[in-house]
Amino acid sequence: MAVTGQMLIGHSATLGQRGSFQALAAASGEELPPLFGGASEADLARACALAQAAFEPYRQSTLALRAAFLESIASNILALGEALIERCQLETGLPRARLEGERGRTVGQLRLFAAVVREGGFLGVRIDPAQPAREPLPRVDLRLRQIGLGPVAVFGASNFPLAFSVAGGDTASALAAGCPVIVKAHSAHPGTSELVGQAIVAAAQSHGLPEGVFSLLFDSARSIGQGLVADPRIKAVGFTGSRTGGVALMQIAAARAEPIPVYAEMSSINPVLLLPHALESRAESIAAAFVTSLTQGAGQFCTNPGLLLAVEGPALQRFEAAAASALGQVSAQTMLTPGIHHSYCQGVAALAEHAQVQTLARGLAGQGNQACAALFATSAEAFLGSPELREEVFGPASLIVRCANPASLQQVLLGLEGQLTIALHLDDGDHPQARALLPLLEQKAGRLLVNGFGTGVEVAHAMVHGGPFPATSDSRSTSVGSLAIQRFLRPVSYQDLPEALLPLELHERNPLRVPQSINGQQPGG
Amino acid sequence: MAVTGQMLIGHSATLGQRGSFQALAAASGEELPPLFGGASEADLARACALAQAAFEPYRQSTLALRAAFLESIASNILALGEALIERCQLETGLPRARLEGERGRTVGQLRLFAAVVREGGFLGVRIDPAQPAREPLPRVDLRLRQIGLGPVAVFGASNFPLAFSVAGGDTASALAAGCPVIVKAHSAHPGTSELVGQAIVAAAQSHGLPEGVFSLLFDSARSIGQGLVADPRIKAVGFTGSRTGGVALMQIAAARAEPIPVYAEMSSINPVLLLPHALESRAESIAAAFVTSLTQGAGQFCTNPGLLLAVEGPALQRFEAAAASALGQVSAQTMLTPGIHHSYCQGVAALAEHAQVQTLARGLAGQGNQACAALFATSAEAFLGSPELREEVFGPASLIVRCANPASLQQVLLGLEGQLTIALHLDDGDHPQARALLPLLEQKAGRLLVNGFGTGVEVAHAMVHGGPFPATSDSRSTSVGSLAIQRFLRPVSYQDLPEALLPLELHERNPLRVPQSINGQQPGG
Repeated sequence: MAVTGQMLIGHSATLGQRGSFQALAAASGEELPPLFGGASEADLARACALAQAAFEPYRQSTLALRAAFLESIASNILALGEALIERCQLETGLPRARLEGERGRTVGQLRLFAAVVREGGFLGVRIDPAQPAREPLPRVDLRLRQIGLGPVAVFGASNFPLAFSVAGGDTASALAAGCPVIVKAHSAHPGTSELVGQAIVAAAQSHGLPEGVFSLLFDSARSIGQGLVADPRIKAVGFTGSRTGGVALMQIAAARAEPIPVYAEMSSINPVLLLPHALESRAESIAAAFVTSLTQGAGQFCTNPGLLLAVEGPALQRFEAAAASALGQVSAQTMLTPGIHHSYCQGVAALAEHAQVQTLARGLAGQGNQACAALFATSAEAFLGSPELREEVFGPASLIVRCANPASLQQVLLGLEGQLTIALHLDDGDHPQARALLPLLEQKAGRLLVNGFGTGVEVAHAMVHGGPFPATSDSRSTSVGSLAIQRFLRPVSYQDLPEALLPLELHERNPLRVPQSINGQQPGG
Repeated sequence: MAVTGQMLIGHSATLGQRGSFQALAAASGEELPPLFGGASEADLARACALAQAAFEPYRQSTLALRAAFLESIASNILALGEALIERCQLETGLPRARLEGERGRTVGQLRLFAAVVREGGFLGVRIDPAQPAREPLPRVDLRLRQIGLGPVAVFGASNFPLAFSVAGGDTASALAAGCPVIVKAHSAHPGTSELVGQAIVAAAQSHGLPEGVFSLLFDSARSIGQGLVADPRIKAVGFTGSRTGGVALMQIAAARAEPIPVYAEMSSINPVLLLPHALESRAESIAAAFVTSLTQGAGQFCTNPGLLLAVEGPALQRFEAAAASALGQVSAQTMLTPGIHHSYCQGVAALAEHAQVQTLARGLAGQGNQACAALFATSAEAFLGSPELREEVFGPASLIVRCANPASLQQVLLGLEGQLTIALHLDDGDHPQARALLPLLEQKAGRLLVNGFGTGVEVAHAMVHGGPFPATSDSRSTSVGSLAIQRFLRPVSYQDLPEALLPLELHERNPLRVPQSINGQQPGG
């Protein structure tokens, strides 16, 4: 397969006619061939019509077929081989090892959802058998299952060109739920997007799935993405990106004649708390691990540790010295796009010039699109009084907030918006303070972690990559891990249906062998 | 306990000073003592502050205590005895038997949620144990549970003064999830609301629960209800009422600095499909059951059968004749409020005067606030061309749509908005047609039922009282049945926490004996 610049509308490759654009080589800034054509309103409408038509047959497909489809996407992505890695490296500037790892994660994610589909627990089957002899009134027979919401719009993320883009977590979980997907490709890696899109279409074709189960659109402006969210045939949205972008999509979705759910993963500064015993005993080693987490992948992670809180004193000074020294040695790294680099430089400059912020260290200088890491410090009072210090700076920059005492640290926490992660570094002696803080931290974040950093998001059953607004638009869900399938489902109840009309998963003899909860008893319980 | 006109802000009974109002006797229209005082902005702020302060201690309470609290509310409601039934009868005009039944349902609902809390499956515990030896990277320890969203605002419904009001389904499910509740009482039954509120406060006090776990506000206009949804301390909203009212709350919630979920159960006409074999063999008996369902409780149910679809012919004529004859004998019944009666009369008049609508029958005439039942008929073409015919008329009125053939019936279904229920009347010979229709019906409604009517919503594990917009604001949930608890929860993941800091339900040895899913395996599986 080759990069051609064409969209994939159902099974057809089509060169968009509404404007054109090229990918930029992240490292050099040079334009890369070919030209990509943007989708028109008619292209959008065609993709939506195909998705709508595909919804019924796709959601009625067997669990085995749906799982096999997901697995074929995974193997087709692997079969793209070097062509995918090389194109992606050019477009994103990310190192080969990282991209190979991300490909493994993407493939693993697709296979995880295949297993989730086969297991069938996501169907949420509940059966309350009829009780004809109940007094004063007989009880009807009630059976419940979860079904797909309908076609889903997915917006590829800039910073995970594979794992949160065309065949990433949102696409995998929506397809697993039985929903067709239309991806709006991220303009920073259109060639990568096209290659992965081809892998999905080939998988759909090889399994005889209806055209329209997947489409990939390029957008030369922003109107097609917005039009996608507004289209009445779209029933849910998955997005990973900026707060501004996510909130704009939320507003479009809320203003529709039929409002729909938007799952936007947006903005988080991922506070790291250094508790006193841990800081006293391990200031230097925590500092080293912190700088590694902060600067890996040029800091371009949603879970990047952008804020560090501790009570001031000699131990924090040791930490700062060690972190500053380590950060000073960090090489500049190529960022994903000129726009991201520009925003990063602006954010860092604003912190550096802030009257109440001290620059502790800068990494090694780079060139072009390269980010120079940065570490700043301020006081709790300044932080509390300056809302601009709470905004995410996307890239390898972090701010240490020196608190006068534990009460001041708690005040800083109280003032924070919702987060994806909060990390605590603690020793046994810190347990009482940690125990007192945990209830507040639970209210602020989707994931709490001890003696680690939020970067490195395990794709697992117990993962939550989510959290209160503005970390996400909907704290009731996760965009990473098997629980993500629930975002694209809704329950339907069947009352007194003859067995001949019931879906197989609701039959008494359970021919699909899916978990069934009977009269509120847990499956198997 | 007596009706005093006072609100309940935390544990304090307070007479509101922002305007006043009285309940009206539904039957006579007379004003009932006492005067109820409306809440001020300061009252609202106090209730919200108390709820916020109560949230942490309440959600940290043991499952056993929370369950006992719900059960005490139930027994306190029963202990109100005659005083509650008599006041409720005066305010609503609903017959004693109905109110006693509704009280039973309310109490049963509270006890169901107590059982759900004790069982612990709602915590959604998932554990992925660490894999220190995994290659290339060790796997961290991840544990997930669901926690409450925060204080919930509940709007009492007019038509279920007990089961969907102060201690109704929304309140029970939110309290079960660990969320404090602030109820905005419905102005049509303030005395009933106060009595039930007293029962809740007494239960909270007897269990030593924090003040603010429950408050009850009266609103002399609409500003307090709107202010409640806008208050940053409120984290979710439960509402049962009109489409206009629900959409207004959705818009307020979406415009907040931190948008929050709104669970509004709004508008549904609950189509009934009469398939040909059933119609041929049982036209008269279905007609009798239909008229009973349509007119019970003066038709004031969200699941009232407001639309009937069938293919025209002699069997449908038999059905129409039988239904018209039965409906003609139905006595007029007192409606809940003058406003509801007025809207009903307007809706019926509009249908009666519609050029393409035929009046098949009217019930017996009444007086004052009484609704006179009504049955209309139109053609599929007229129905498809007249959006106004698809609007809910709240009360004992229904519209038969005569379709030329099955294809026309399917066209009518395709044009419908989201519904709470769709009922099919069918015999064995109708299975092929029903099987072909079911996929479409699933997309249109939260509950499908066979050879029955949507009225009579069983409180069960497998119930869905929900459905696509505008039936509800959020099709991913139900407001009746044990699954409703999930509306007020969000997942939190704990990574590498020492056991000493983990919530008990996440401990390896499972001291709370709650269902735990390990490595994605269903509990007990």
